[in-house]
Amino acid sequence: MSVAAEPQVRSVGRAFGILDLLTRRPPVLPLREIVQETGLPKTTVVRLLADLQRRSVVVAVRDGEYSLGAAMLSWVRAAEGLWRVDEETHAVMARLVREHGETVCVYVRQDLNRIAIAQHEGRHTVRNVIEVGAPMPLWAGAASKVLLTAKPQLVERLPLDEEARGRLLREVAAAEERGWARSDGEREVGAAAVAAPIRGRDGRVIAALNMSGPSSRFTGDVLAAGLESLRAAAERLSERGIGSVEALL
Amino acid sequence: MSVAAEPQVRSVGRAFGILDLLTRRPPVLPLREIVQETGLPKTTVVRLLADLQRRSVVVAVRDGEYSLGAAMLSWVRAAEGLWRVDEETHAVMARLVREHGETVCVYVRQDLNRIAIAQHEGRHTVRNVIEVGAPMPLWAGAASKVLLTAKPQLVERLPLDEEARGRLLREVAAAEERGWARSDGEREVGAAAVAAPIRGRDGRVIAALNMSGPSSRFTGDVLAAGLESLRAAAERLSERGIGSVEALL
Repeated sequence: MSVAAEPQVRSVGRAFGILDLLTRRPPVLPLREIVQETGLPKTTVVRLLADLQRRSVVVAVRDGEYSLGAAMLSWVRAAEGLWRVDEETHAVMARLVREHGETVCVYVRQDLNRIAIAQHEGRHTVRNVIEVGAPMPLWAGAASKVLLTAKPQLVERLPLDEEARGRLLREVAAAEERGWARSDGEREVGAAAVAAPIRGRDGRVIAALNMSGPSSRFTGDVLAAGLESLRAAAERLSERGIGSVEALL
Repeated sequence: MSVAAEPQVRSVGRAFGILDLLTRRPPVLPLREIVQETGLPKTTVVRLLADLQRRSVVVAVRDGEYSLGAAMLSWVRAAEGLWRVDEETHAVMARLVREHGETVCVYVRQDLNRIAIAQHEGRHTVRNVIEVGAPMPLWAGAASKVLLTAKPQLVERLPLDEEARGRLLREVAAAEERGWARSDGEREVGAAAVAAPIRGRDGRVIAALNMSGPSSRFTGDVLAAGLESLRAAAERLSERGIGSVEALL
């Protein structure tokens, strides 16, 4: 594209950066911190905030303090409606948590990210808690490997060195062959997971059913039992579907 | 600001315009329609969509079809948490609907818009249905007049001719004096409403409690009874508060 295109998309990125910051740090942030965290010039931040405010996407709460605006609620309802898994899928997830105590998520791939669209938290005090909707890296984690089986060529586009790329490709191939994947400490030391594919009507892998928790509990017989239940659940979901969200996958 | 500032904010506006369009027209829209509805050049739309996709804010569903992305879910949760009115407020709203059958909303002002942050739909077949989170004009409607009592000088900034401005200022003054406002067909022919102020601890008007329905049912004794209940409910909410959302108002 032309040179003029560059700053345009950059400003979109900056606007979303501010929204992400306000999402991560509720309820309100002073202007000073927004400037500090984004690393942008104060004039730029002020101009973007004024624009976001006019759209009610951001709200000025007190002098120099900002929060997410109420206009977000309409996107909220739309996105929640679109990305909802159905009640039976939730029931299957809840049963896995009841039986094995660990956090269960449904992940989907979007571009070069994976995103949890549903979560049932584990019952242990030490448990994995995933932020639903937060883009996570596709180069790490059991769910990523399962999702990549649908399109292994994406590995080429991930920010990896030659060695890591080769390793990931082998792991994706293994996940394809075995019908499940495992990870331990890839994204965060001490966090482990197993994942199995959820397939659409046409047999494509459309999502990953994922069970995650502390590495210390993801070994031996406990792991084997969890993996068996998880695979059975993923197969059940592949057979009966996971709801209207499939239209997007 | 400098001349360079203009196109930047413009591109942010275009990005949000696309998100609004996808919000209003779920589940998926073909590229062709996005181009048509936004009136933007195809290359611009394609570039913006690519950027929004990289952030998982938009997702490409099929060839040339787009939807809201799952990354929206994290904003969703944050915005919902921030803008939630508490259970007792919902109970008060539900009681009004039970007694009078009409739709009840809590509106707040954001910049030059009013936005419903909570709604209980009426029980009649013909009822008012408001999109929660959608910015609505501050120059029309009973809720606007109540909200403007907190800052009547905003009337100067609304897109009105001299006559309409004068009328609105008089109506805001009347709403201040009587403690309620009424509208009929201002925004939409056949739609009527009454509204009463919800005040914060410091006595400021922070929100409007609004009852709305078809004009034909908002007359005479029925209207009088509805207004009386609404005002009593708004006073109760002013006394006991409407939840953590008050920190943003």
